[in-house]
Amino acid sequence: MSLNIEFHYDFGSPNTYFCHRLIPGIEERTGAQINYCPVLLGGIFKATNNRSPMEQFAEVKNKNEYQALEMKRFIARHHFSDYRSNPHFPINTINLMRGAVYASHQDYYKRYIEAMYRCMWEQGKNMADPEVIAESLSEHGLPADEIVAAMQNPAIKQELISNTSRSVERGAFGSPTFFVGDEMLFGKDRLLELEEEIVSQMR
Amino acid sequence: MSLNIEFHYDFGSPNTYFCHRLIPGIEERTGAQINYCPVLLGGIFKATNNRSPMEQFAEVKNKNEYQALEMKRFIARHHFSDYRSNPHFPINTINLMRGAVYASHQDYYKRYIEAMYRCMWEQGKNMADPEVIAESLSEHGLPADEIVAAMQNPAIKQELISNTSRSVERGAFGSPTFFVGDEMLFGKDRLLELEEEIVSQMR
Repeated sequence: MSLNIEFHYDFGSPNTYFCHRLIPGIEERTGAQINYCPVLLGGIFKATNNRSPMEQFAEVKNKNEYQALEMKRFIARHHFSDYRSNPHFPINTINLMRGAVYASHQDYYKRYIEAMYRCMWEQGKNMADPEVIAESLSEHGLPADEIVAAMQNPAIKQELISNTSRSVERGAFGSPTFFVGDEMLFGKDRLLELEEEIVSQMR
Repeated sequence: MSLNIEFHYDFGSPNTYFCHRLIPGIEERTGAQINYCPVLLGGIFKATNNRSPMEQFAEVKNKNEYQALEMKRFIARHHFSDYRSNPHFPINTINLMRGAVYASHQDYYKRYIEAMYRCMWEQGKNMADPEVIAESLSEHGLPADEIVAAMQNPAIKQELISNTSRSVERGAFGSPTFFVGDEMLFGKDRLLELEEEIVSQMR
């Protein structure tokens, strides 16, 4: 049986963008394939009573300043020259994630992911706005009408809910979350351990 | 001017114990000396409105279970075979940290630190109890009467308060916290970056 590796992501989190940019290197070095599983971060937060670090630590002196510094250091370390913070942050990503569920069954899933991450974390677009989503899909050569229609499809909506619930059942409380078999790793700061875990389980 | 590197520690945090065990390797590889600065973690929390992760995330599903797993992985990775969780945790460390301030002016400071970490995180002693402290000091060949008396010395008490305030003024919100010159790094998960920062600033 081959090893199942999942990346539970929501476009709304910049940390998942950083992971997305670093995953190709991990796949190349390990020879493993990492499967992108769309989840709704807001749904995970609701189910686990969690919040974003920015909210969680809003009243804590020094903490968010340090988190910002860590992000800056991470960006510098990995030379993410295309990254820019999104002026519309935080963005409601429910439509984007429903679109991701739909796209995951199509042959253009990878192109959809790449396009949405660019819009969110390189181009600073307001990806909560359905018109902006439709325009962006077209610009990236994706079938906008088909994908936008699918965002209202009850089966697609239900699949996103199921993905999100299953993620929490498996131990998630946020995103980016990775599963290597049953081993869970959380956060952009666990990519080294992720790679080691993949190598270890592939042996 | 030589590079000033400080480790702001409180014996009460197991993560500072892990750092203490890994610091000799960092010093050996870099040739740098890391200065131990005693602070009161409870005082830092009060000044910054912060709490321990265990408290902070008590109501968050999956989070503390994952933190426990990360600690277990960290212990396995670094082969900390002597570590055991302290049954008296959380322990009020105010006397231990006052003792550390006093010891920092004596030639046995390193031995004091090593002894207290062993009692806390290898031998599971109740180090909030003044009798246990006195006994432990004697067992480790340290001048118990002198150190215990110093814990009531107003100048020593004040120095611990000052260390703690200065730590917060420089950006700390918890412990373990490191300063390499003015660059702050927080947590046992930043030891690789700490070492790189030391090497970079020593150039």
